This record gives sequence, structure tokens and C-alpha cells, in this order.
Amino acid sequence: TEIKTIAVLKGDYIGPEIMAAGLAVLAAVTKNTTFQYRLVALPFGGDGIDQAGDPLPAATLAQAQASDAILLSAIGGPKWDQAPKRPEQGLLALRAALGLYANIRPTRISDALVARSPLKPELARQTDFVIVRELTSGAYFGEPRVLAETYAIDTMAYQVSEISRIMHKGFRLAQRRRQHVTIVDKSNVLATSKLWRRVAREVAQDYPAVTVDYTYVDAMAMGIIARPATFDVIITPNLFGDILSDEAAQITGSIGQIPSMSIGESGPALYEPIHGSAPDIAGQGIANPMSMIHTVAMMLSESFGEKQLAQRVTAAVAQAIAAQVVTPDMGGQATTEAVTQYIVAAVTQP
Amino acid sequence: TEIKTIAVLKGDYIGPEIMAAGLAVLAAVTKNTTFQYRLVALPFGGDGIDQAGDPLPAATLAQAQASDAILLSAIGGPKWDQAPKRPEQGLLALRAALGLYANIRPTRISDALVARSPLKPELARQTDFVIVRELTSGAYFGEPRVLAETYAIDTMAYQVSEISRIMHKGFRLAQRRRQHVTIVDKSNVLATSKLWRRVAREVAQDYPAVTVDYTYVDAMAMGIIARPATFDVIITPNLFGDILSDEAAQITGSIGQIPSMSIGESGPALYEPIHGSAPDIAGQGIANPMSMIHTVAMMLSESFGEKQLAQRVTAAVAQAIAAQVVTPDMGGQATTEAVTQYIVAAVTQP
Ligand SMILES: CC(C)[C@H](C(=O)O)[C@@H](O)C(=O)O
Ligand SMILES: CC(C)[C@H](C(=O)O)[C@@H](O)C(=O)O
Repeated sequence: TEIKTIAVLKGDYIGPEIMAAGLAVLAAVTKNTTFQYRLVALPFGGDGIDQAGDPLPAATLAQAQASDAILLSAIGGPKWDQAPKRPEQGLLALRAALGLYANIRPTRISDALVARSPLKPELARQTDFVIVRELTSGAYFGEPRVLAETYAIDTMAYQVSEISRIMHKGFRLAQRRRQHVTIVDKSNVLATSKLWRRVAREVAQDYPAVTVDYTYVDAMAMGIIARPATFDVIITPNLFGDILSDEAAQITGSIGQIPSMSIGESGPALYEPIHGSAPDIAGQGIANPMSMIHTVAMMLSESFGEKQLAQRVTAAVAQAIAAQVVTPDMGGQATTEAVTQYIVAAVTQP
Repeated sequence: TEIKTIAVLKGDYIGPEIMAAGLAVLAAVTKNTTFQYRLVALPFGGDGIDQAGDPLPAATLAQAQASDAILLSAIGGPKWDQAPKRPEQGLLALRAALGLYANIRPTRISDALVARSPLKPELARQTDFVIVRELTSGAYFGEPRVLAETYAIDTMAYQVSEISRIMHKGFRLAQRRRQHVTIVDKSNVLATSKLWRRVAREVAQDYPAVTVDYTYVDAMAMGIIARPATFDVIITPNLFGDILSDEAAQITGSIGQIPSMSIGESGPALYEPIHGSAPDIAGQGIANPMSMIHTVAMMLSESFGEKQLAQRVTAAVAQAIAAQVVTPDMGGQATTEAVTQYIVAAVTQP
């Protein structure tokens, strides 16, 4: 069988710590299986600045592009606050260069996790939705962008074609789920949101079995808290998606566990935990590796079709949680290493 | 003593129902006091479109401008979805014309209300912060704004002077509170946010006793859920403020009770409940009047310095809640009328 190439962007601060954990689990779960891979470690983010003078070195982009999937941990931090190009610029450039226009963020509160939610159990229970965030346009990329002495300007722009493809992505996903889409915008104020809603209505006609709700972003910020269990697929512009998907992550009470995926029309997808590089706990060996391990599982499932291997990984993580082998952020005493070893052992059990 | 003029914008759907409640309480609490006022009812929003062909008729603007304070209930709704100018345009135009650049949204979860919060009690308890939202610039007003066949454009723009005045407003408020400001932006991506943070740092130097935190809007969307009791004053650009202040309202579990205030350099301030016009329950006599009644209290306190009268109103509302004389949205059986009569009676007790 073909050997898959996985680009490894180990990132900054806790990034390398959790990446090591993810890769250990990947090695363990694929051992003695037909799935074969090779890793290519590439400097990126702060690490890219340090090693190659740019958050997205040209060689990193080229090799990421040539890979079958990209694993990223977390980037950025105070070390590069004054850098001419910050680590985050590398991430935006990578999304743009690879055309990763759709960010997919599952938000699920399993019965085992209800107790961890900051929400009351009766609200949190049965939450299971996916945020589909447009990732390569909108306020993040519009021109002109000006930072002058006395004023600044950002531009939010959307093409119909950009809206249309993310809508189709979301509606197709809903077809494989509970057939319900919620369109988020601020169409009572913004022109881009008026267009967003217009295109949504058009695309919706191609999916007659899918129920569609239209909601303003401010009402959605309420809905995620008030009735999270009622959503299925949420389709949102880039900037609103940034805010809402973090809000959604927070209601799970488990941001140290959540993976995400960014995909384009073709080419490799990018997988990363949703949290940041946590400078405050870096180097202490206590970062929660579960997000990166779930990220590896998502990659196995979505890029490589290895649903069973992915399932073994997520089951092993659940087992660690049940056994309370968890890091301090989850109320435990375990180190990154101990959690990882537990999960490695669990996935290698016959 | 001088007779105060209060502009009354009764609004749409449940708007007139709750406005009547607010005015009944205003009449009752000021009876036999030295506070004297005259009401001027003005068409606005959908009501403005219906009565005068525009959501902000010229006469409404002129008379609002000449008033001492403006009471607004809630506007908009499906009736005007296809109108050339929607009701919301009237609100944006009014904010701009009166220079109401600061929107002030208190978010408080009193011990009596902890049980109503969707958050677990240990998180909700002691929440007491104020969101200071910039209201007359940013993405809501930037030019160009284009809605074309194949694309759309919005512009987010900020002047240093616009940022500076809202910062001073927020910092001064913090001086009278717990001396803590949280600055919200997306300065890792947006130019306007880079400027926002730069001006914040400059203004902060004028307030050495105030502690300042800087946070990205996505992290803030998490923080409001994860640790609401840790915030004091939150200063945010217009668009982020729209989202975050509704999220904040939701964690109180009491959006039917929350007032807000919009103020400028001079001229009348505008007071309104934070919720919408609730077309689904309009005409049924079950709208929660507490938001409008709290809005009246806020006006008495902030525009007219009538702290004691305001205090009587809020105490009367608390009494109604304690007696469970509340509308269905708060789990009760009472009508708008019954709640209002209870509160009217309570404020007139000696
Ligand atoms: C790091 C930052 C640029 C990024 C974003 O805003 O898109 C992050 O918050 C995310 O959500 O992936
Ligand atoms: C009605 C709408 C234009 C308005 C806004 O977005 O500012 C409302 O949501 C608010 O927060 O006051």
C-alpha cells in the first residue's frame, strides 16, 4: 500500500509537547496495521520565525502542499509579539495558499462530559453540532487593510462563489447528519451578510430535505448557551465563526480535548487542536495531550478513511478520562507523559 | 423645578405593550415627588415606516434631539422585512445623528438570580460587569459598503479619536467600580484592532490605578462563560460588542429584564431593553415588562440623578420576582398587566 506523507508542524510553547503525544499515539495505533506513513517535520509559526526567518517558510509551504495531510499543534506567543510578521500570519498565509476554505469544528457533549460543561446539565445534554466556518475570505483577507497614525481600515469582502462553496459544504454535511442547517449572519446591518443570506437561500433549494434557520450572529451567541442541543450544522462567515466556535468549545468545558479540520477543494487537509499554545504552562509537562490525540484521530478518519483506527484512539481517550488519568486542566494530577502512556497502552491492547 | 421632556419611541410588536408598563411605573414612582416630566410620543422603527414612511422620520429626530432623555422599547420584525429601509436603519441613523457613541450594558447576576442562569451556580455567582461598546463607528458605519450581484463589501474603520473617547468612557467607569478594564480586540488579525489596542495602551497611562487586560474577542467569548465573575469593565468595538453583550445577557438567564443605555458627548441619552420586539408573542399580553421597567429606572438614575426613585423601582421589581409574579419567560403565569400592577403598587407603597 501507498505510504502516506504527513506534514508535522510542531509549533510553539506547549505545541511540541502535545505533538509528541499525538505522534506517539499515531505510531502505536498504526503498528502492525496496513496503514503506513512518513512524517516530515516543518518549521512554522514562531518556530518558523526562529528557524527560517518567516512564520511560513517557502519550503514549509511547498512540503505541506505535497503532503497527504498536515498536523499542526498550536502556534504563537509573547516571544514573537514584536516580530515584523507574527506567527499567526503564517497560519493565515497557509490557509490561503492551500485554499483551506472550510473550517470544521465538531462540538459534542457526550453523557460522560456533561458534568464538565459550565452549563447546567439539562441544557448541555445531547449537544452535538458542527460549526462550518468560512476560512479564507471575509474580514481576515479583504483589501484594503490600512494601519495609519490616526486611523485604521479593514475590509470585509465576500464573492458569491466563496459563499456558495462553503454553503454546499455545510449542506452536504447536514445531509449526513440531522438535516438541519443554521445560517449565521448580521444581515440587518452588513452588506456581506445580506449577500451571505441571499446565497444561502439559493443553495438551500438544492437540498429540499434540509431544514434551514437564519439567525443573526448576536442571537446565535445567545443560542449556543441557551439551547445548544437544538443545532446540527451551523454555517458562518470567517470572523463570526472565530468567535462562535470558541464560544461553542467553551460550553463543552473541554477545550483541551477538541480537534478541528480545515479543508479545501483538493490537496491536503490541515488538522489542529482548537486551543492555543498556552505559554503559561509550557515546559512543565502538564499540557493536556488529548486535543492533539483527538486531532490525530480526526486525521485518520477524514483524510485516510481509517475509521476503525480513529475509533480506537477516541475510545482510548474516553478510557483515560473514565480512569481519571487526566491533566490538571481536567481536574487531574497526571502529566502529559502519563496520559499519553495510558492512551498508547490502551490503543495497543488487542 | 424644571419639567423634563422624555421622548417615547414605543416601537413594534411587543414594544408598545412593555412601553405602557414602563410608563405606568414611571408615573407611579414619581407621583407626589418633585420630579416632573412630559412625554412626547414619536413614531420610529417599523412604526415610523407605517406612520411617516421612514424608520427615523425627520420630526422624530428633531424632537428626540430636543428632549432630555429618550425611552425606546424594541423595534423591527417580519412586517418590514421587504421595506426599502428597515426599522433597524432607523436605530443606526438615530445613534449616528445623536452621536451616541457609547453603549453601556450592565451584566449582573444577583444571588436571587443565580438559579436562573444557564451556567452552573459556582460560575454564575457574583457576576457583575459592564460592557462598554463603541456604537457609532466600526463595521456598522464604515464606507464603502457595497452589495453587488456577485460580491459584497463592508468596511471596518476606526479613527484614533473615536477609540480614545470610548476608552476614556470605559476607564472612568472602572474608576467608580473595581478598577479593572478588559480590552477586547482581534489585534492578531485586524488592523483596526491593532489600532484599538495601541490607543488603549496610551489611554491606560492616564489611569494608573486601573488594571488592564488585553484579550482577543474569541478568547473573550470563552471568558464570559468560563469566568464571568472576574470581569469589571469590558471595552469593545461595535461589532464585537454586539455579539459579546448578547452572549453576556444570556448568561444571566434574564434577557427579559436587562436595560441598556447609549450616550454621547452631550445631548439626551437613549435607554432601551436589550431584547428584540418578539413578534411571536406580540398581542398576547404576556411580554415581560421588567426590562422596560428597569430601563425606566436606569433613565431616572443616569439622566436625571434620581437614584432613590430608581432604587425604588428596582426594589419593586425584585419584590415581584420574589413573590413569583412573573411572566411565562421567567417560568411564571402572570400577564404583562399583572406584573405591572404589582410593581406599580409596590413603588407607591410608603
Ligand atoms: C490564531 C488566529 C489567527 C486564528 C483565527 O482567528 O482564525 C485562531 O483564533 C483560530 O480560530 O484558528
Ligand atoms: C437591531 C440591531 C441593528 C442592533 C445592533 O446590532 O446594534 C441590536 O442588535 C443591538 O445590539 O442594539
